[in-house]
Amino acid sequence: MSDKQNKLWGGRFSESTDEFVQAFTASVNFDQRMYDQDIRGSIAHATMLAEARVLTPDERDAIIQGLNEIRAEIEAGEFQWSVALEDVHMNIEARLTERIGVTGKKLHTGRSRNDQVATDIRLWLRDHIDLIDSEMSRLMHGLLGLAEREAATIMPGFTHLQTAQPVTFGHHLLAWFEMLRRDRERLADCRKRVNRMPLGAAALAGTTYPINRERTRELLGFDEICYNSLDAVSDRDFAIEFCALAALTMTHLSRMSEELVLWTSAQFDFITLPDRFCTGSSIMPQKKNPDVPELVRGKTGRVNGHLISLLTLMKSQPLAYNKDNQEDKEPLFDAVDTLQGCLRAFADMVPALVPNREAMREAARRGFATATDLADYLVRKGIPFRDAHEIVGKAVAHGVAQKKDLGDMSISELRQFSDQIDEDVFDVLTLEGSVSARNHPGGTAPEQVRAAVARARAALAG
Amino acid sequence: MSDKQNKLWGGRFSESTDEFVQAFTASVNFDQRMYDQDIRGSIAHATMLAEARVLTPDERDAIIQGLNEIRAEIEAGEFQWSVALEDVHMNIEARLTERIGVTGKKLHTGRSRNDQVATDIRLWLRDHIDLIDSEMSRLMHGLLGLAEREAATIMPGFTHLQTAQPVTFGHHLLAWFEMLRRDRERLADCRKRVNRMPLGAAALAGTTYPINRERTRELLGFDEICYNSLDAVSDRDFAIEFCALAALTMTHLSRMSEELVLWTSAQFDFITLPDRFCTGSSIMPQKKNPDVPELVRGKTGRVNGHLISLLTLMKSQPLAYNKDNQEDKEPLFDAVDTLQGCLRAFADMVPALVPNREAMREAARRGFATATDLADYLVRKGIPFRDAHEIVGKAVAHGVAQKKDLGDMSISELRQFSDQIDEDVFDVLTLEGSVSARNHPGGTAPEQVRAAVARARAALAG
Amino acid sequence: MSDKQNKLWGGRFSESTDEFVQAFTASVNFDQRMYDQDIRGSIAHATMLAEARVLTPDERDAIIQGLNEIRAEIEAGEFQWSVALEDVHMNIEARLTERIGVTGKKLHTGRSRNDQVATDIRLWLRDHIDLIDSEMSRLMHGLLGLAEREAATIMPGFTHLQTAQPVTFGHHLLAWFEMLRRDRERLADCRKRVNRMPLGAAALAGTTYPINRERTRELLGFDEICYNSLDAVSDRDFAIEFCALAALTMTHLSRMSEELVLWTSAQFDFITLPDRFCTGSSIMPQKKNPDVPELVRGKTGRVNGHLISLLTLMKSQPLAYNKDNQEDKEPLFDAVDTLQGCLRAFADMVPALVPNREAMREAARRGFATATDLADYLVRKGIPFRDAHEIVGKAVAHGVAQKKDLGDMSISELRQFSDQIDEDVFDVLTLEGSVSARNHPGGTAPEQVRAAVARARAALAG
Amino acid sequence: MSDKQNKLWGGRFSESTDEFVQAFTASVNFDQRMYDQDIRGSIAHATMLAEARVLTPDERDAIIQGLNEIRAEIEAGEFQWSVALEDVHMNIEARLTERIGVTGKKLHTGRSRNDQVATDIRLWLRDHIDLIDSEMSRLMHGLLGLAEREAATIMPGFTHLQTAQPVTFGHHLLAWFEMLRRDRERLADCRKRVNRMPLGAAALAGTTYPINRERTRELLGFDEICYNSLDAVSDRDFAIEFCALAALTMTHLSRMSEELVLWTSAQFDFITLPDRFCTGSSIMPQKKNPDVPELVRGKTGRVNGHLISLLTLMKSQPLAYNKDNQEDKEPLFDAVDTLQGCLRAFADMVPALVPNREAMREAARRGFATATDLADYLVRKGIPFRDAHEIVGKAVAHGVAQKKDLGDMSISELRQFSDQIDEDVFDVLTLEGSVSARNHPGGTAPEQVRAAVARARAALAG
Repeated sequence: MSDKQNKLWGGRFSESTDEFVQAFTASVNFDQRMYDQDIRGSIAHATMLAEARVLTPDERDAIIQGLNEIRAEIEAGEFQWSVALEDVHMNIEARLTERIGVTGKKLHTGRSRNDQVATDIRLWLRDHIDLIDSEMSRLMHGLLGLAEREAATIMPGFTHLQTAQPVTFGHHLLAWFEMLRRDRERLADCRKRVNRMPLGAAALAGTTYPINRERTRELLGFDEICYNSLDAVSDRDFAIEFCALAALTMTHLSRMSEELVLWTSAQFDFITLPDRFCTGSSIMPQKKNPDVPELVRGKTGRVNGHLISLLTLMKSQPLAYNKDNQEDKEPLFDAVDTLQGCLRAFADMVPALVPNREAMREAARRGFATATDLADYLVRKGIPFRDAHEIVGKAVAHGVAQKKDLGDMSISELRQFSDQIDEDVFDVLTLEGSVSARNHPGGTAPEQVRAAVARARAALAG
Repeated sequence: MSDKQNKLWGGRFSESTDEFVQAFTASVNFDQRMYDQDIRGSIAHATMLAEARVLTPDERDAIIQGLNEIRAEIEAGEFQWSVALEDVHMNIEARLTERIGVTGKKLHTGRSRNDQVATDIRLWLRDHIDLIDSEMSRLMHGLLGLAEREAATIMPGFTHLQTAQPVTFGHHLLAWFEMLRRDRERLADCRKRVNRMPLGAAALAGTTYPINRERTRELLGFDEICYNSLDAVSDRDFAIEFCALAALTMTHLSRMSEELVLWTSAQFDFITLPDRFCTGSSIMPQKKNPDVPELVRGKTGRVNGHLISLLTLMKSQPLAYNKDNQEDKEPLFDAVDTLQGCLRAFADMVPALVPNREAMREAARRGFATATDLADYLVRKGIPFRDAHEIVGKAVAHGVAQKKDLGDMSISELRQFSDQIDEDVFDVLTLEGSVSARNHPGGTAPEQVRAAVARARAALAG
Repeated sequence: MSDKQNKLWGGRFSESTDEFVQAFTASVNFDQRMYDQDIRGSIAHATMLAEARVLTPDERDAIIQGLNEIRAEIEAGEFQWSVALEDVHMNIEARLTERIGVTGKKLHTGRSRNDQVATDIRLWLRDHIDLIDSEMSRLMHGLLGLAEREAATIMPGFTHLQTAQPVTFGHHLLAWFEMLRRDRERLADCRKRVNRMPLGAAALAGTTYPINRERTRELLGFDEICYNSLDAVSDRDFAIEFCALAALTMTHLSRMSEELVLWTSAQFDFITLPDRFCTGSSIMPQKKNPDVPELVRGKTGRVNGHLISLLTLMKSQPLAYNKDNQEDKEPLFDAVDTLQGCLRAFADMVPALVPNREAMREAARRGFATATDLADYLVRKGIPFRDAHEIVGKAVAHGVAQKKDLGDMSISELRQFSDQIDEDVFDVLTLEGSVSARNHPGGTAPEQVRAAVARARAALAG
Repeated sequence: MSDKQNKLWGGRFSESTDEFVQAFTASVNFDQRMYDQDIRGSIAHATMLAEARVLTPDERDAIIQGLNEIRAEIEAGEFQWSVALEDVHMNIEARLTERIGVTGKKLHTGRSRNDQVATDIRLWLRDHIDLIDSEMSRLMHGLLGLAEREAATIMPGFTHLQTAQPVTFGHHLLAWFEMLRRDRERLADCRKRVNRMPLGAAALAGTTYPINRERTRELLGFDEICYNSLDAVSDRDFAIEFCALAALTMTHLSRMSEELVLWTSAQFDFITLPDRFCTGSSIMPQKKNPDVPELVRGKTGRVNGHLISLLTLMKSQPLAYNKDNQEDKEPLFDAVDTLQGCLRAFADMVPALVPNREAMREAARRGFATATDLADYLVRKGIPFRDAHEIVGKAVAHGVAQKKDLGDMSISELRQFSDQIDEDVFDVLTLEGSVSARNHPGGTAPEQVRAAVARARAALAG
């Protein structure tokens, strides 16, 4: 154990910390990442303390200048991080005292590491929520552009991965857009709860110094203060809520990825991914692998894992701060990095997708995609829906046996199944007829797709 | 396979369903729970179809009357549920046709089971969110009442389950309140996204019938329609988002439970739980077990599990509806039941908690809870904080050895550690002095507790 | 609260249990499922007590006869389960006393509900492990039969869902077999740890009665006794270990399901599922959906969820028994039911799969599946592998542009890329040549597939 | 994109990889950790290839020498890892070719990165399983030593955290031992399935080169080969199975941690942790926090999370290798590190625990711990157990009201509740009498504790 450590809290201790225990319990290796937030928090705290006359203006200025110099040292890679000093907070405070002398020790007046770390992590997360929001927005714009271009491109719509009805590719892309729209709403809702300030809770009960929490809140741009000091130092809801929304967003990206992987297979061949988003095989010369969607799909598990990690962490913890909480940072950091990276990869990739329109159309043409339209046609001729369904089912069974789609059958072939079928049936058996007929809000008609793009653009701009 | 089943979709099939497969894939055993939502959805759909002239007024009236009679049958326990009819929707529709004849078959015009089930489950969840919200509110009021009564009751505040500083019991209870306040916000945020209407998406692409989604939305009280049909039938975000907030609320209840279990132990003895919330042992006659908090704590895992279940379910599913989605209901239903039951148990129990004020106070008196106050005292006498910390640390080490708290030492004993200590030190070493000195928003002073209760009451009323 | 309940442990209680609390904390609704195990455990306990002269032979006989009659009542559906009696144990014990009088009360001598429930659940799980083992074995035999039949059927092998190299369908099925082989090993390993007897631990510390645990162990067919009473009543490892292996088995079934869903799509069309394992659509007459694999895939999440539920349940529980543990049963029961049902569905379905050999072969022929073989051919002609890889890569790029597979190019087309290519190249570009050349243990050659089937059959029989 | 990368698989590609994609998809930052396993695998592969005459003896020797030199470079920190070379395998192979020229390229003959990485990760995990096994053994020996020393130390046994019956501290520690005994069995079971060799599966189908898998297996110390090439490259069961057992072991450590945290609280005060395993507070001078058990408890969530991460990763993956699988390593690595670190911390700490025997005894003396003994006493006097239970329950209710334990009541006080109580009752109300009377295998009697320690020591040695 180092002498430095002794100085922080060694008074009542009769032996020094075991060396392995020191490394095992230190957090500086991962929490140094919050250095900027820690310094911003300290500057605001010092500013407030000076206004409350706990510090003199000179002390405040010395502290602020010292902290700014330390930030520069860190960013220049010149800062010596010490495991013996446990965490980012103590590393920076110790360096401050080294630089500006005894005044540095006064910075910690009226606060504790418990409220300090809770403040830092919220500031850090708020910064990253804003970055993630930008990537989401970029991806959403990319989807709208592609959807508009492909508003009339016909592809098979699937249920149970079986051809169901024809849809437009633009409509399919807007389904992706809707997922992200909800994700972005959840992100904004989460930000409200992240942006509350624990500082002032001190160790757990508040402080005896005449602090002005409202002033610090204003300086740091928090929406409100945490109203209860015990809760302020023990609450990690914001990390869990963020991981939950991140897991759901990743789930959406995994669904899009699954489709991209399917669509780039030889069997589907709906899409070509530009080479720059793929890698090859060191052994099989023909391979061009959709690495980016595969990897994004794989990373979904990671964020689900972090969510469980944090929920398990907090389960049954009595108030207030417990050392367990040190385990909050790594899952959160990695969830943020993963989500941000995956969104960035998608935002880059989506506008570059090349649809193979002919293959899509051909796939829709096969697979009896207009069977529902035929049933609806028969209903219009007065046949009850359940009977129409039965008639079309038999025509399909015939088609499967003959390897012939409905639109490829002759009129006499079709009339075997119902004499209500006339030549005009071929209008409803066309793909264009099928999609255009679904022309209500939310339907797949090209007209609806274009309207949806326009509405979504306006909303994004708003 | 039954003949009935054949009638639904058997046209293209050449053999009947395997009996085990029929039971394995049926959902009616659990989805019958949504019968009321299914009927309300059908009534709104029929109303809209009549306005759109797809149904005649007479047909509409027959359908509505038939559905209302079926509801009565179900509620009287007279309805015969059939596994061969797969799910709640087909059971009700088949019964409707039995009762009102061929008109019953027209109800399904312009919709599909895919959008129907998605609508039912959202209606069901919306109903239950409102019930959960009431229980939350009841529990929160209970906490405020108790907190107000115990605003000046002193207990030890813990960090690391070690005595840290004295706090008031009312303040501790308000920390619980803050957790629930966030939970309730999340519930309201989730409700916004639950309350969107999939109906009209039909199987996946919309319908060729002249439906008026806006009208159905209005009739069912949805805030908006789902804007994309593919998304509408495949989206289960609302269930995941609900489970995520339920898991977090359960995590909070598990923390409260852990504390109640600790506090009712012989070692803490801070609280007495009324006998009606406890059970005994069949073998140990002296036992009175805090079953309710233990069970609530145990049920936390259940909701975490359901959350993972749903996230795993949706991972990598291609659009649009897949049979996998049938697995969405049981986890959601059980998460709702669990959360509702646990909140109810807590809302009943919290106002009945009996604090053992003397034991709490005695525990705060021991454990050197005012050591920070002594350090602050020395700082006010001009000693730098780190030095003051060291002095107090040594006094505590002496106290541990002598089994004597700081407040129990004589003035000469205390002066061994610093000659800056005078008789006035005993003022800061009192528990009342300690808590009252933390008198800023969020601090533990009784005055702050009372102000917080008032503010919270006003907000709840708002 | 009922009078009955009072009789179990009411001595020290001054008020009766709240009615909602009674229902909330009762387990009889789900634990009655263990009635047979409970009765078997009680019969063994009574037999041992009589041998230890704690019961007289007459008392023992009365108890055993009474319990057997109760079992008959339960199985005839005539037993009245009571929530006021909390659980299966108390329901049966109370009924026993009703039937045989005061002797019934002696059955509980030297045991407690804590060791009783732990014994029941282990017996129940052991019974179900054996049933699951049978289903696994049945499915594995089905796979071997199909693999043998399809030992020489050629299909594309995929990596990244891109055509990689030709493989045989039999070889692919044996990959599924290997997954299950490991699952079955894990099941057997788990059974060893399930099959240990807690009975005799009593409430937590053992009993003062002269019990003979070794004798009860022998009567109940346990492998050994639990060696520590505190551990015996608090250990739920067996449930967690079972859920972990069940989650892994479900993960395997989800992988097989994913492939079946892909293979039955119009795009792949590798497999036809008999109609009896599929269902149709109420709206789209052409649909034939692979419900069974989809549902199995969806049920994976359920078991992952139960695993997390149980891990969360046990986290941080102090010794010994806590009420939380009541939450162990529902996740375990459902994990067992889910795994058993899915294995049964697969064991029924796999032998009935109809491969579309022509479609498989055609898919392998396209997609440049023999590119690696061409590279190996060039290496044999003396070209370094990395250069050969580059040459073939260019030939593939040419093929993609010309929509022509390697085997479809003329010799002069191929020689554009390397003059080392001669007429004999077409031997290595055949699918049969490619698979037969991978003729070592674990390779895809038909000869290896047949050998693997034989070895696996022998091992299953062993 | 770098030129180097092009050389690996660029033939069919027309544009270079996007720079962000390159960084996003590279694994070298984390998989370099397996450098030693990668080199050992390559040496065995080269050795086998030379025996199969695919390499000449000189080529083999050059390769082996080159690899050994590269290992030295890596261990000296002189190796330049390149993200453009994607992973540890390509980094080492490229460096080998740099050092020994074109022969280096021949090393990859008859294998692929798919089987190579699967082999490396199994070797790495096997190595770490053996290290973890050692730490487990060390901790188990520590527990036995302490249990032996404290075989007769009396403490309260708890159920529901309520005092239940007296137990010995040694007995309690042996409950911990039993948990670890099962964990170590599971570790050994898992090792069997880890120790199987994928090498020889090549990309997915085996190879056309005359490899001898049996020989490579022997050289690398694997128990058997993976019997199916498709399974070999896609199987990650071993990682999941390891994480499952690690999660369960962490759950056990979390339970021990919870108890240590409780026991070091002022309220329990059963245990003193040496200062070297604790840390203090920067603000509260009296604090001595049980950081090590708290942190271990917190780390439980982390491993649960990794387990879910891997299960989610593998869900629904079609065969064979997919890029998703790259996500297998970080969760596994961190699960290994976490488990190893926590076991080490416990193995260091447990022998240093200082029990406060007097406080333990005093706690057992209070809390009516011998109430069951009094009931058993009354049964021996001929009173039916349920009546005896009722009598004692009333005596306890009296004791609660009078704040007097059973052993502290006078004979006349006790006789108020039953005239069957005589002076000899005080024998059964002693703590020593109570624990000694539970003298059967698994019971808490000191004699049984000592026997259990001896049996466990023998088993560990075996």
